[in-house]
Amino acid sequence: MSPLRSGGYLRAVLARARGARLSAGTRGSSGGPGGERDSPAGASLLRGELDRFGGVTVRLSAPDRLDVVAFQRGLQAAVQQWRSEGRVAVWLHVPILQSRVIAPAAALGFRFHHAESDSATLTLWLAKGPSRLPGYATHQVGVAGAVFDENTRKILVVQDRNKLKNMWKFPGGLSEPGEDIGDTAVREVFEETGVRSEFRSLLSVRQQHRHPGAFGKSDMYIICRLQPCSFAIELCPHECLRAEWMDLEQLARTERATPVTSRAARLLLYGHREGFDKVDLTMDELPAIYTGLSYKLYHRPLPDTYRMMAGVD
Amino acid sequence: MSPLRSGGYLRAVLARARGARLSAGTRGSSGGPGGERDSPAGASLLRGELDRFGGVTVRLSAPDRLDVVAFQRGLQAAVQQWRSEGRVAVWLHVPILQSRVIAPAAALGFRFHHAESDSATLTLWLAKGPSRLPGYATHQVGVAGAVFDENTRKILVVQDRNKLKNMWKFPGGLSEPGEDIGDTAVREVFEETGVRSEFRSLLSVRQQHRHPGAFGKSDMYIICRLQPCSFAIELCPHECLRAEWMDLEQLARTERATPVTSRAARLLLYGHREGFDKVDLTMDELPAIYTGLSYKLYHRPLPDTYRMMAGVD
Repeated sequence: MSPLRSGGYLRAVLARARGARLSAGTRGSSGGPGGERDSPAGASLLRGELDRFGGVTVRLSAPDRLDVVAFQRGLQAAVQQWRSEGRVAVWLHVPILQSRVIAPAAALGFRFHHAESDSATLTLWLAKGPSRLPGYATHQVGVAGAVFDENTRKILVVQDRNKLKNMWKFPGGLSEPGEDIGDTAVREVFEETGVRSEFRSLLSVRQQHRHPGAFGKSDMYIICRLQPCSFAIELCPHECLRAEWMDLEQLARTERATPVTSRAARLLLYGHREGFDKVDLTMDELPAIYTGLSYKLYHRPLPDTYRMMAGVD
Repeated sequence: MSPLRSGGYLRAVLARARGARLSAGTRGSSGGPGGERDSPAGASLLRGELDRFGGVTVRLSAPDRLDVVAFQRGLQAAVQQWRSEGRVAVWLHVPILQSRVIAPAAALGFRFHHAESDSATLTLWLAKGPSRLPGYATHQVGVAGAVFDENTRKILVVQDRNKLKNMWKFPGGLSEPGEDIGDTAVREVFEETGVRSEFRSLLSVRQQHRHPGAFGKSDMYIICRLQPCSFAIELCPHECLRAEWMDLEQLARTERATPVTSRAARLLLYGHREGFDKVDLTMDELPAIYTGLSYKLYHRPLPDTYRMMAGVD
């Protein structure tokens, strides 16, 4: 079954939905012949695209007066056809202002895959057995900065506002979309305490599920070792109750610190006494071969003899 | 302004929306007086709850014949009132079959915060300045298992089906919701190759943004060191093109491995020759003080003298 034959069927079915016009093409062909030839200039489009995994993607861009009943009838017929053609799944992208098509799609079995800002994506699994579609993002990432001054053996700690117990912890917060771990640590330390710092290493990774502060999703909390570049504290009153430079051994021994803070303080004390190479994960940037992008990789420092072995990096 | 006063206002406004009944109460009080006294038994509910951050949560559970125009009018009046009361934000939870209220809410400025399965959550920021509402999950987590047999110096590698370049890599895949890192590694190794294994340590963490395989979200890819419990390979033909036990030094030197696989192979070779304590992050389970749950924490092994210092863990 060629992409255009299925696309052609989608055109035929949905042309009956009053007010809805559509075009179809293979993935990435939105400007190509399949995407253009049947759609009048300026017409709103319903696109049906096939992907290499056997799925069909429909990007809804319907006119204001889309007839919801006709849409549902057209979608139902299209789903029957896709199923008969052996398609495994349908992805339906809906702009927020077209949300009235969501309930009719739900009546056909579609469910939310994800939604953000002004767009929702629904899916319907067509093949036998449970859905093998990939899920959406499952984790929020929080990062804390352990800013340690080796000269004075002082470490920067805060107490959060809005917490039930006032325990010492490292300043930190959630990563912004697209933000690297070390950049989150440096930014959050500065926002909460006014202290400027530089990323040195990654010390620990914590994974916690069904997190109440993550809408029931999982939480990854990473502590970084940072080097201070300034020392004057300017407390952010919205986020912190107090902040101070505390002796590292005092932090490692106090019961007024969260368990993960206490553990990181002991790692730092060990590193301070016997070398940070005992506790650090250092960072490298590497190319991603499939996407052409790059990424940051954190692991134990590797001696040069191992780094320089013949190979790809 | 007490929680109930605002809740009372929401009741008054939305009672005018034909067919919509509602109750209100503080967070967690759904069975309490605020939640019960104005709602006839069996009536569908619109709940308005205040949270300790100054936000209002509305859980839509409206009857089938909710009048959308009246809903929009009621919501608009409620938003004006909340704004005048100094509320900072509104959270609107919408069951998928009530999605026709989404477009009217969007016309008032609401946007999708997230959606999953049969429910969407929309938000509206009311306070001055940019929204300070927490975002939704930003990362998918993928885990690979480096199953290494110290006796034969062989490591288990695969080539993916559905990839453009056939490079050797470790078996792995996306974490299921709520699944621990080590469990994902063990499960994926078994699913792809039929080899049973046990978690030993975490070797590396990779962060990559705007990932095309993650719906534009970020990807965290973690490689674990696993100990094999069985050796016979039963290839999963849906996922893998081939799988084999390869000499570790060969993997560390070949150009037919992805860069991150090659790097991990060198870490393992270093660990095999000089002790895995040089490369491992080991795992501990700790209590979460604010939620009562527990979590898994990964960091460098800590000598007993540091683990046993007086303190909280």
